[in-house]
Amino acid sequence: MTGALLLTEFTERARRHHPHREIVGYDGGDEVLRYDYGAYGERVVRLAGALRRIGVKPGDRVATLCWNHHRHLELYAAVPLAGAVLHTLNLRLSAEEIAYIAGHADDRLIVADPDLRHLLDGVHPELGVVETGDAYEELVASGPVLEGPPDRDENDLAVLCYTSGTTGRPKGVGYTHRGLYLHTFAACLADGHAISATDTVLHVVPLFHANAWGIPFAATMAGAAQVLPGPHPSVAEIASIVERERVTYVGMVPTVAVDLLDHVRRTGTDVSSLRALVLGGSTPSLELIRAWEDRGVPVFQGWGMTEISPMATFTRDPFPPDDPGERHRRTQSQGTLLPGLAWRIVDDDGVEQPWDGESRGELHVRGPWVATSYYLGEAPERFDDGWLRTGDVATIDATGRLRIVDRTKDLIKSGGEWISSVALEQALLADDDVADAAVVAVPHPRWQERPIAIVVSRGTTDAAPILERLAERVPRWWMPEDVVLVDALPRTSVGKTDKKLLRARYAP
Amino acid sequence: MTGALLLTEFTERARRHHPHREIVGYDGGDEVLRYDYGAYGERVVRLAGALRRIGVKPGDRVATLCWNHHRHLELYAAVPLAGAVLHTLNLRLSAEEIAYIAGHADDRLIVADPDLRHLLDGVHPELGVVETGDAYEELVASGPVLEGPPDRDENDLAVLCYTSGTTGRPKGVGYTHRGLYLHTFAACLADGHAISATDTVLHVVPLFHANAWGIPFAATMAGAAQVLPGPHPSVAEIASIVERERVTYVGMVPTVAVDLLDHVRRTGTDVSSLRALVLGGSTPSLELIRAWEDRGVPVFQGWGMTEISPMATFTRDPFPPDDPGERHRRTQSQGTLLPGLAWRIVDDDGVEQPWDGESRGELHVRGPWVATSYYLGEAPERFDDGWLRTGDVATIDATGRLRIVDRTKDLIKSGGEWISSVALEQALLADDDVADAAVVAVPHPRWQERPIAIVVSRGTTDAAPILERLAERVPRWWMPEDVVLVDALPRTSVGKTDKKLLRARYAP
Repeated sequence: MTGALLLTEFTERARRHHPHREIVGYDGGDEVLRYDYGAYGERVVRLAGALRRIGVKPGDRVATLCWNHHRHLELYAAVPLAGAVLHTLNLRLSAEEIAYIAGHADDRLIVADPDLRHLLDGVHPELGVVETGDAYEELVASGPVLEGPPDRDENDLAVLCYTSGTTGRPKGVGYTHRGLYLHTFAACLADGHAISATDTVLHVVPLFHANAWGIPFAATMAGAAQVLPGPHPSVAEIASIVERERVTYVGMVPTVAVDLLDHVRRTGTDVSSLRALVLGGSTPSLELIRAWEDRGVPVFQGWGMTEISPMATFTRDPFPPDDPGERHRRTQSQGTLLPGLAWRIVDDDGVEQPWDGESRGELHVRGPWVATSYYLGEAPERFDDGWLRTGDVATIDATGRLRIVDRTKDLIKSGGEWISSVALEQALLADDDVADAAVVAVPHPRWQERPIAIVVSRGTTDAAPILERLAERVPRWWMPEDVVLVDALPRTSVGKTDKKLLRARYAP
Repeated sequence: MTGALLLTEFTERARRHHPHREIVGYDGGDEVLRYDYGAYGERVVRLAGALRRIGVKPGDRVATLCWNHHRHLELYAAVPLAGAVLHTLNLRLSAEEIAYIAGHADDRLIVADPDLRHLLDGVHPELGVVETGDAYEELVASGPVLEGPPDRDENDLAVLCYTSGTTGRPKGVGYTHRGLYLHTFAACLADGHAISATDTVLHVVPLFHANAWGIPFAATMAGAAQVLPGPHPSVAEIASIVERERVTYVGMVPTVAVDLLDHVRRTGTDVSSLRALVLGGSTPSLELIRAWEDRGVPVFQGWGMTEISPMATFTRDPFPPDDPGERHRRTQSQGTLLPGLAWRIVDDDGVEQPWDGESRGELHVRGPWVATSYYLGEAPERFDDGWLRTGDVATIDATGRLRIVDRTKDLIKSGGEWISSVALEQALLADDDVADAAVVAVPHPRWQERPIAIVVSRGTTDAAPILERLAERVPRWWMPEDVVLVDALPRTSVGKTDKKLLRARYAP
């Protein structure tokens, strides 16, 4: 039994087995492009041929700096098919950061949206920059068709993505054909995301972000319809697309889900087609889970990391409890481990901790789609004999359910005891007057560290009642030293709360 | 990204992640053994340790000659965990055939049920025969526990199974850890068998048969409950187990499904828990599909071969038509190709045929769980540059739906035109007076070959009316030269109609 595990075969599969399933591109404004896997596959093999023709060699990095549109999805397939490595650049970074990353990756060619072109002023790839307008269409039209699978080994890289991380410079994570092939199967398991030919998936998560959770590959393998929302999608546009296209599956970060919910509540948009709203990137509040489920939309959480391709867990519950509160609490956990992966939690001395839901330790993950090094070998201390040290502190209960307690560096050490910033944030978010909240540590002369809370209120300008109600929910020694009311929390380039910035601002 | 694809990790996964999901063994009579993946995993690591202790070396063949009981399921996991190769012997073969196969495989140890022990009179494996009674329990009890994964490469064999084939001696098919690992993922895809932690699977297909379709591995990976019916399961016992255990998934050959349906109709057994009745091994009649679906049981078909681990297709229809007749006809097709595999149909000159539902050719299949040779290299003509020549003649339509027209050797060449014995059998089965039917070719002086029909009637002793009605359904030149009424059709050791025997009897 042989047969290399090449990511690229899924495009050919969709072209042959699901030629008439749609790919729908909203290109901003009223323009909507509709084509199908037959036409998509045709364009992909031409684009792959064109890349080779203009000088892209096997193993070369071909970067994208693009919004979520159909051409980006074509590049997802065509670059690995050409034998090259798709490098998705993050369009929310500064020109300086992009220049650093493109230089570090030694990108040979960059395909960029015209409105993002200015972010590449400091970058001069050997084969130039192709804009996703006429120049791109000329490439596709000229071909020639690239026949057959790429001349690559399954352990060669297919995709490269940089994680901004929280310390030091961004680091590259290289994904092998084999790793992504297996990750794609995992995304289609009945007990996982269960991506199926019956699905219409909407790509809200930016495609530059950790392969957008691997869903583009999974949808292609399954022959699901795919919908691209185009540049700058607003929640109004997302809601309207869900309604018009009868979207069944969509993933997003909790903050977008909050805004989308507000919009759906105000407008009464029909979201009844959704069989799965999948939240990832940070822990959703119980209130958010409850509110969506009250609208009839099943909510799941997937936990992962750029270093894990990215998915490691899913919260599908084989035997959900009748009690809605308990059901929502389980959805708020990070869920159970996907088949194929292994994990452990270890304390500071490297001792493995029991699965009792109480013992905490750093989470380590291992498996065929988990990185075993960074792109050029940086930060080797993050890897240990096949295990990835995630930097997350977690508990695992007897049923194998994960709860991320905190990032190792976000834990607050107060008088020798640990305070979880995540738990404190969730306690704040349970308050009706709190729209958003972040907790960071400030140095303290007596207790070493103490928490302070940065809070977005739903109108009130007085933090005292919020603190009073918080006191009823958390141990006395967890109570923040201070509450700062702000209009909005700063976000990182992938939409998470930027705690690095908050620390710099409030806890210098 | 590394991490070997070892089949054995799924047992450890079930032990840790689904410790309390049940394994239920009906041991004949009223005895029912209930334990769980926690206890099962414990016994498996002890059994694996015991195998090593008594002299089993990595790569050694350890054979089983067993019914479907919990000990057989333990051997499924323990033998590969010990680094050895599980060789499932077919208990329906004669002692001579078994002696040939055990000798060819060079089995070092055989674990056999006491009531099957006599079939091994001519076999003397180096490490002896262990009976699945006290001797087996002593092995498990003595251990020691084997820790960690086997010292094997993912391309090493984990399982070996012989296919009796239709010509020549039986041939061995070796399954690698990698191939079965991927096959296991495929069995759990949402668009495939969709084996899930919510399932309770009943193993009706004998575990000696092509890894019983890979379902034991899939159920273990998913953490599904597994039920073993024990020795000599009757349809009455199968029905009773489905009702008592609330079985959700069961696979079987069509002939068993016919008898089970009769029983359920007569007794009113509650089979409402079934979410999937999966038929495999031969093409079911439309009547059978309709009758089960009329009882509320969704019917699927999976097509495969021992050489394909065994599954290649599934008939889940993403967009089933409203018309029940058309729905049943689609279920009667062999379905669509599982992701990971590729196929083609080629004519006698090796020219690939179009997917138009009309053009026919021999079906070739390729992929990471498809054999690329027999165990000791026999019949190399069955393999062509990674492709398996299945020996089946098929059409594929524009939507990628397969229809097996016939076995290459079962096609009837009449006057330069081909008659499909399968199509003629289906036309006969559509007659209310026909319970079962087989068609074989007889030599003919003028037309080269002509079909004759061997028919099991539902009571009538006059074949003429059956022929009259058949004439309304098939072209005139398809009409059989003769109809032979018999009490029952002969079966092969895996439950298929034994056409070899019919040919010997009726078309010498």
